[in-house]
Amino acid sequence: MSKKNNNDKLSIFSLGGVAEIGKNMYVIQYANDIVVIDAGLKFPEEDMLGIDIVIPDISYLTENRDKVRGIVLTHGHEDHIGGLPYVLKNLNVPVYGTKLTLGLVENKLKEANLLGETKRILIDADSEIQLGSTLKATFFATNHSIPDSVGVCVETPEGNVVHTGDFKFDHTPVNGQFADLQRMAQIGARGVLALLSDSTNAEKPGFTPSEKSVGEVLDDIFSKAEQRVVVATFASNVHRIQQVMNAAYNTGRKVTIIGRSMVNVVGIASDLGYLEVPDGLIIEPEEVNKMAADRVVILCTGSQGEPMSALTRMARSTHRKVDILPGDTVIIAATPVPGNEKYVGRTIDELFRLGANVIYSRSNSGVHVSGHGSQEELKLMLNLMKPKYFIPIHGEHRMLRRHALLGESVGVEHENIFLIDIGDVVEIQNGVARKAGKVQSGIVLIDGLGVGDVGNIVLRDRKLLSQDGILVVVVTLSKQDGKIVSGPDIISRGFVYVRESEGLLDEANRIVSSTLEKLMSEKVNEWASLKTNVKDSLGRFLYEQTRRRPMILPIIMEVN
Amino acid sequence: MSKKNNNDKLSIFSLGGVAEIGKNMYVIQYANDIVVIDAGLKFPEEDMLGIDIVIPDISYLTENRDKVRGIVLTHGHEDHIGGLPYVLKNLNVPVYGTKLTLGLVENKLKEANLLGETKRILIDADSEIQLGSTLKATFFATNHSIPDSVGVCVETPEGNVVHTGDFKFDHTPVNGQFADLQRMAQIGARGVLALLSDSTNAEKPGFTPSEKSVGEVLDDIFSKAEQRVVVATFASNVHRIQQVMNAAYNTGRKVTIIGRSMVNVVGIASDLGYLEVPDGLIIEPEEVNKMAADRVVILCTGSQGEPMSALTRMARSTHRKVDILPGDTVIIAATPVPGNEKYVGRTIDELFRLGANVIYSRSNSGVHVSGHGSQEELKLMLNLMKPKYFIPIHGEHRMLRRHALLGESVGVEHENIFLIDIGDVVEIQNGVARKAGKVQSGIVLIDGLGVGDVGNIVLRDRKLLSQDGILVVVVTLSKQDGKIVSGPDIISRGFVYVRESEGLLDEANRIVSSTLEKLMSEKVNEWASLKTNVKDSLGRFLYEQTRRRPMILPIIMEVN
Repeated sequence: MSKKNNNDKLSIFSLGGVAEIGKNMYVIQYANDIVVIDAGLKFPEEDMLGIDIVIPDISYLTENRDKVRGIVLTHGHEDHIGGLPYVLKNLNVPVYGTKLTLGLVENKLKEANLLGETKRILIDADSEIQLGSTLKATFFATNHSIPDSVGVCVETPEGNVVHTGDFKFDHTPVNGQFADLQRMAQIGARGVLALLSDSTNAEKPGFTPSEKSVGEVLDDIFSKAEQRVVVATFASNVHRIQQVMNAAYNTGRKVTIIGRSMVNVVGIASDLGYLEVPDGLIIEPEEVNKMAADRVVILCTGSQGEPMSALTRMARSTHRKVDILPGDTVIIAATPVPGNEKYVGRTIDELFRLGANVIYSRSNSGVHVSGHGSQEELKLMLNLMKPKYFIPIHGEHRMLRRHALLGESVGVEHENIFLIDIGDVVEIQNGVARKAGKVQSGIVLIDGLGVGDVGNIVLRDRKLLSQDGILVVVVTLSKQDGKIVSGPDIISRGFVYVRESEGLLDEANRIVSSTLEKLMSEKVNEWASLKTNVKDSLGRFLYEQTRRRPMILPIIMEVN
Repeated sequence: MSKKNNNDKLSIFSLGGVAEIGKNMYVIQYANDIVVIDAGLKFPEEDMLGIDIVIPDISYLTENRDKVRGIVLTHGHEDHIGGLPYVLKNLNVPVYGTKLTLGLVENKLKEANLLGETKRILIDADSEIQLGSTLKATFFATNHSIPDSVGVCVETPEGNVVHTGDFKFDHTPVNGQFADLQRMAQIGARGVLALLSDSTNAEKPGFTPSEKSVGEVLDDIFSKAEQRVVVATFASNVHRIQQVMNAAYNTGRKVTIIGRSMVNVVGIASDLGYLEVPDGLIIEPEEVNKMAADRVVILCTGSQGEPMSALTRMARSTHRKVDILPGDTVIIAATPVPGNEKYVGRTIDELFRLGANVIYSRSNSGVHVSGHGSQEELKLMLNLMKPKYFIPIHGEHRMLRRHALLGESVGVEHENIFLIDIGDVVEIQNGVARKAGKVQSGIVLIDGLGVGDVGNIVLRDRKLLSQDGILVVVVTLSKQDGKIVSGPDIISRGFVYVRESEGLLDEANRIVSSTLEKLMSEKVNEWASLKTNVKDSLGRFLYEQTRRRPMILPIIMEVN
């Protein structure tokens, strides 16, 4: 590591993942060396109509592209790697990740035609990587709801900055991949300048149960089920999938896998040795109907009630290959992400109506545990690391705040805890930290192939259109005398049933005509003025009649 | 009660409130006598864009208007009385309700100009009302999150039908209005043919805590808070409001009331004697700033994070009268209704950012308890009533199903339990019940002043518009030779940033022109065909370029 220059500073900030859940991206910079931790995506808020995904604004990184030494990935979840294809298109830098993480990334880069040009560097928990002349990263194994997750320790001339990634402490992990308490303690013993730690479950008291507890419940359900068992869970939850495989094996059932992302992850995880699948356990969906019902497990996507997912299609009897049969046991091994409760509820109802017995998290069934540590685990991490400065990350503002209180409760000084928003820079120089302004940060909306071509005006229009629809008013005026030659014709979409509202639209027509005629008689003939007047008078009339405010688009043309 | 005619039957069905939460409406019919229990509204599902409220389709009632003897209300919540103004506009029948329920109804009818023409009949838990020649209703007091709630026992020639309304068993009720266990037991002892019972919390094990437990928590928080206390709760939760008043009084604070519905309910409940407010306790909002911070309680609406509510405005610092100050304690005394979690979360975050200490349900704070009974209470009701037939009501399908299992667990025969959807008729004749077809049922959407003028086509268009916006293509053709005289002009809304997408729109223009020119050269000149071709070719081009499918509205005109 190069010698410390007293004018240089350490900067820590987030481009995504604080005061929000998702699109995680953290930046650690010392002098001319920048390391980026994670590059996630986020699903749109309910007011981002028509948007597919949201990624961080990376202007800061592209403006400093010659300083970016690499992107270090903590694990393979979408909110940590899903933004990579978009980031790498603008910033061709090396990507560091563990085996499973890179396996998932490669799939993504292939789809985006970026695989060839991206330098991918495999790390494990024992790796040490030099990033430019001043930064070095080491790693420590953690537990999370996907294998091969790590935390990162970035050694800087100012001291060590630890980023936990997502984590829990699972003392009986499914794959024997224990969290490396010894290394964490060692890092803590050497001294941690700043800790960035996962706040997702900071509001939950106690300890998060071990993933293994789910396995016991699955064994029990599988052995009691008299007919087929259907399990929906997150495709990326390889531990959960392993436990489904185990329970199937233990109870003499075969497993079929339904849903694109589930097939994809099972393939990658098996190839890389993260899933142990006994020979002959997996069967094709087509074989299911030939088997006795009590010999079958269907493992599928759709635990969030996503409209196009495998389980949702089965629940609606629109799946090409699998029908739900009366007496089937359906396990939804996940909790609904906030915002998805209604979708999940609808799927459960539809499954019940088909005669299935549905086991889901609301019924306190033990078929799901979180991948994030609760309050006692967060305190354990704080006490292992004993940081001087603490920056809660990964969570809505209230969760960061709760995590800050936990930090105080274990002895971190109140003034050494930084509650940050995206872009807020925490600067550390000569061991002293302070908030030091903001770098450019924000969101980039992705809609279809468009990256960033939809912004506030387009969203505002979509919102307006979604509420009360649109009226297009077409009228042709004579160039000679300004008289109406044809129209006004009114075409509406999303406003009212036209057939039932003829009277209303006829009257609207008359209002447009008389507005224009009045303006003509007053010799007002600037187009902008004509349009504004038509909009105003028609809008006022429609609001009085209907209490609705559709968008009004006047199209006025002139002919000879 | 008239003598039983052996050809007559008893019919029980729901027009709203089963397999859903909200718009409760139940119908009990014997021969030519119909009684309706409740007339609620529901808030729109997320795919009902632009819709304000949803009410039941009451075609069956209007078609049998001469048989409808009245509408009996169980309590004054919107999902039980909110549909009344729309129903009464089409069906002028007497309305029966307890004092507070009718108080809230009158306010509604006044706004709808229906107060004069509506016969309102005050009942209490001891009332007996004759409904036509064959039906009689008696009542029993229940506990719920609004005072003056009752269950109904409809005596019919076939036997007694009991409808519980919403209920819990609160053994230490705030206002001393105990649930009438004796009368319920008496009804049970006389024999219950069919029980319709509230399933809202059928998935929750155990007992729902007493409302009084919230009072103790409030006392504690109020006395410890060093500055102002802000409490947001449902306006209709008069018990909760009483407890806020009590806690304020006990801790020497004055109360100001913010939010239209809160002011309204406090007014009605005080006038009718359901709220005891010590003289001088309530102050005007304008007086707040003159008081010492630790002498003030602000009671307001907005516990669901509703965008226009008092608390949300305060959280955004856009309220006209009240600002949140650092050090204020804000209590959100409610749980988010499914679908509102994100709004509530955002409000909490904004309050924290203003420096308030926010106490909310996620933090296990005891500031809210449910108004609905949990599993043990539902079993208690079943055991008090000992019904022959059981119809779970008030809940999504999975809740009704859970409630059915509870019914079986206490001894109701499996085949005597009816899981129904709206419109499904349970018919009972000579003591034997069976499902007997469906009556017309469904939803009526209310958008502004329009009742039922928005249906599937309009909603589909709104959905389309909300996803990718609209392109209006205007082109004028010559009547003589079919050549393009002016245009094509393309106007887009909600599609892309026009300024950044000039190239795309220019190319779109060329595609429209060449499509039309090709058709003209082939002598295709039916307008429908021209329009379809423009739509198809332009739609295909835009999808290829953007992966979006905006609505395309071609407007083709002819001139001499």
